[in-house]
Amino acid sequence: MRRAVLLAVGDELLAGAQQDSNSAWLARELAHLGIEVVAAELVSDDEPAIADALARALARAELVCVGGGLGPTLDDVTRFGVARAAGLELLEDAPTVAALQAWFERRRVPMSATNRQQALFPRGATILANRAGTAPGFRLELGGRHVLVLPGPPRELHVVWQEEVVPWLRAAGLAAAPRAEHAFYLFGLPESQFAEHSGTWMARDADPLIGCTVRDGTLTATLRARAAGAESLARLAARTAEFRARFAAQIYSEEEWALERLLAQELQARSLSVTVAESCTGGLVQEHLTRVSGISRVFSQGLVTYSDAAKERLLGVPRALLAAHGAVSREVAEAMALGAARASGADLALAVTGIAGPEGGSAEKPVGLVWLATALHGVVRATERRFPPGERDVVRRLAARTALHLGWRRLARSD
Amino acid sequence: MRRAVLLAVGDELLAGAQQDSNSAWLARELAHLGIEVVAAELVSDDEPAIADALARALARAELVCVGGGLGPTLDDVTRFGVARAAGLELLEDAPTVAALQAWFERRRVPMSATNRQQALFPRGATILANRAGTAPGFRLELGGRHVLVLPGPPRELHVVWQEEVVPWLRAAGLAAAPRAEHAFYLFGLPESQFAEHSGTWMARDADPLIGCTVRDGTLTATLRARAAGAESLARLAARTAEFRARFAAQIYSEEEWALERLLAQELQARSLSVTVAESCTGGLVQEHLTRVSGISRVFSQGLVTYSDAAKERLLGVPRALLAAHGAVSREVAEAMALGAARASGADLALAVTGIAGPEGGSAEKPVGLVWLATALHGVVRATERRFPPGERDVVRRLAARTALHLGWRRLARSD
Repeated sequence: MRRAVLLAVGDELLAGAQQDSNSAWLARELAHLGIEVVAAELVSDDEPAIADALARALARAELVCVGGGLGPTLDDVTRFGVARAAGLELLEDAPTVAALQAWFERRRVPMSATNRQQALFPRGATILANRAGTAPGFRLELGGRHVLVLPGPPRELHVVWQEEVVPWLRAAGLAAAPRAEHAFYLFGLPESQFAEHSGTWMARDADPLIGCTVRDGTLTATLRARAAGAESLARLAARTAEFRARFAAQIYSEEEWALERLLAQELQARSLSVTVAESCTGGLVQEHLTRVSGISRVFSQGLVTYSDAAKERLLGVPRALLAAHGAVSREVAEAMALGAARASGADLALAVTGIAGPEGGSAEKPVGLVWLATALHGVVRATERRFPPGERDVVRRLAARTALHLGWRRLARSD
Repeated sequence: MRRAVLLAVGDELLAGAQQDSNSAWLARELAHLGIEVVAAELVSDDEPAIADALARALARAELVCVGGGLGPTLDDVTRFGVARAAGLELLEDAPTVAALQAWFERRRVPMSATNRQQALFPRGATILANRAGTAPGFRLELGGRHVLVLPGPPRELHVVWQEEVVPWLRAAGLAAAPRAEHAFYLFGLPESQFAEHSGTWMARDADPLIGCTVRDGTLTATLRARAAGAESLARLAARTAEFRARFAAQIYSEEEWALERLLAQELQARSLSVTVAESCTGGLVQEHLTRVSGISRVFSQGLVTYSDAAKERLLGVPRALLAAHGAVSREVAEAMALGAARASGADLALAVTGIAGPEGGSAEKPVGLVWLATALHGVVRATERRFPPGERDVVRRLAARTALHLGWRRLARSD
């Protein structure tokens, strides 16, 4: 496989003031193009530091992607550092100057001298047009190796990458077929239990290699063939079948991480509508659902009933029930789901009530305790979960995704 | 200032399957201890790669933090790479073996051979206890420089850092007073306009140095003194005062990024309650509000009215108004805010209706158009925003934070 190194330029990244999300995005894109990222580095907005990092990167990989520091401000020095490492002078590109001038004229804003630096490119560079911003990127060939210099704002990076870089990587024969792989998405299985049940499958020299990550209750296991040959592909197919059988109870998809998309698909396939009543998650379940474009076909309304009074008024949860069992209880979760269905006329209702913390916990009902309910055509089911207490945000995210998972299971698995 | 390099070990990081959040966290922690991060690198789960990266890092900095790859699985090889770079043999630590055995006995799970590797440390290393997990970290002194090897799971990293590393950094005299700095949080000012209005203040050799990042509508500007001396501190104080005056209209805080916290503070200070009615943001405004622990004192209920029918039924928006102006209009936003206040009895109501896309836009009402309204004791105000069309998620996040900002301004600035 061809090798790539990623350099992300920006003092704000090294100071921890901003998270570098571009490197992870680029690594996934490159993997799809059959190119392996062997190193990734954050580099300061400093000309010698950029030149030094680029020289080291070129010693390790055929392709180096440099992101950020192409803007109009005085601390945008990436082009100067790249030119220094390449030993090339910077030349002003007349069409880029004209485009910049037109951009400022349209906005009736004077163009400053520093804006003009965005039209400087090392001699021999190919300019990469940027439809989403003012700073074009560029690429350079240096001794048979390639340097891509790309804008830092993610939206601009994505546009330049798709429109200018991917076609060139393919045309230049730098892209290859990605390594064959297969992903499984499992919900609610702790990593330690997964490790116990997968045993030697996880060994570092196994073929396929299995990588595993956990986020918001989903464990993603990716099985990757070590080679392109038939033997390796056959091993991948066999292990995929074994994996599917061993983890059948926990696998919810082999294509899609997002539970809200799977739930939306099930609802649309059955022409069913959904509603939500939330307490501790405070709108997060509905926020997930409405991430899906076109969700309006199955979702009309939802309620955030944070106080007992709101549960009573909006969902018709009896005051006596709240007094007898407390807001975080099987009885109240069930009444919330039935009340939400009644209030909206939806076929399926999801309800969540819990203690996100850090306040509000007790010995009997600790922080992390959440009751969830689903009501489908009047038939209600409730589930208790005890999430690890700790960060409020973590409890809320786990609770919201559990609600979506329970809703999906009721439709897809008749559970 | 002392210099640090961060190494984050993990194939999943280089593959983009998981985002490295530890480096940004460590960079902020180190800055508070007066230590500057000069480079940060992702390194593969590979013994020679770890040894190589560590050797290069030690050439550049007095302190190197290595995170991840200390676990029990076969791909956890960080300790082997560090021992190789240091030229030290690994020795089994008897108390750590005993602690691991006790941990597994408590859980009635057999301890595997690979678990035992977690008790191996380079000769001369100081073990860093990990109260939050099974893998202790360790530190080594090499030729007057220091290597810290820390667990990868963020919760474990944070515990080991606070309990074992920070006290040692202070005791060893490696920590210093942080560089004096001052932050401003501005809302709704594009970076290009900020650059125009700040001019030469942003120059890379200016004192104070100004760093600027933009996220979800907030521009964070951080003014940092270049040196600890009185002259540099006086410059910082003068520039801070100038900055405050120049950007008075856009600055919403000098302490807090999160608009929901500021709004919650204003509500509590005035003993006012709040409610929300959301369409395109689908629960995101309420999700922000309920991130604030204790928000139940001012927030009882909110509504997600995604369809016209829900706006009519739950908020009393007249059908004729929806027909005449469309759901995304000044008139409907105002009616939503007034209806939400009426339905809940809250003092302040926030309403959002817009076109998040990618579907639903038209020439007259394009994707990105959002109408927002605030109703305070029956007096309603509406605001139109046109966010850059593009990612649905971006439009929704900008709309939600704009709603919180408008609510905060009505209270804090009587706006």
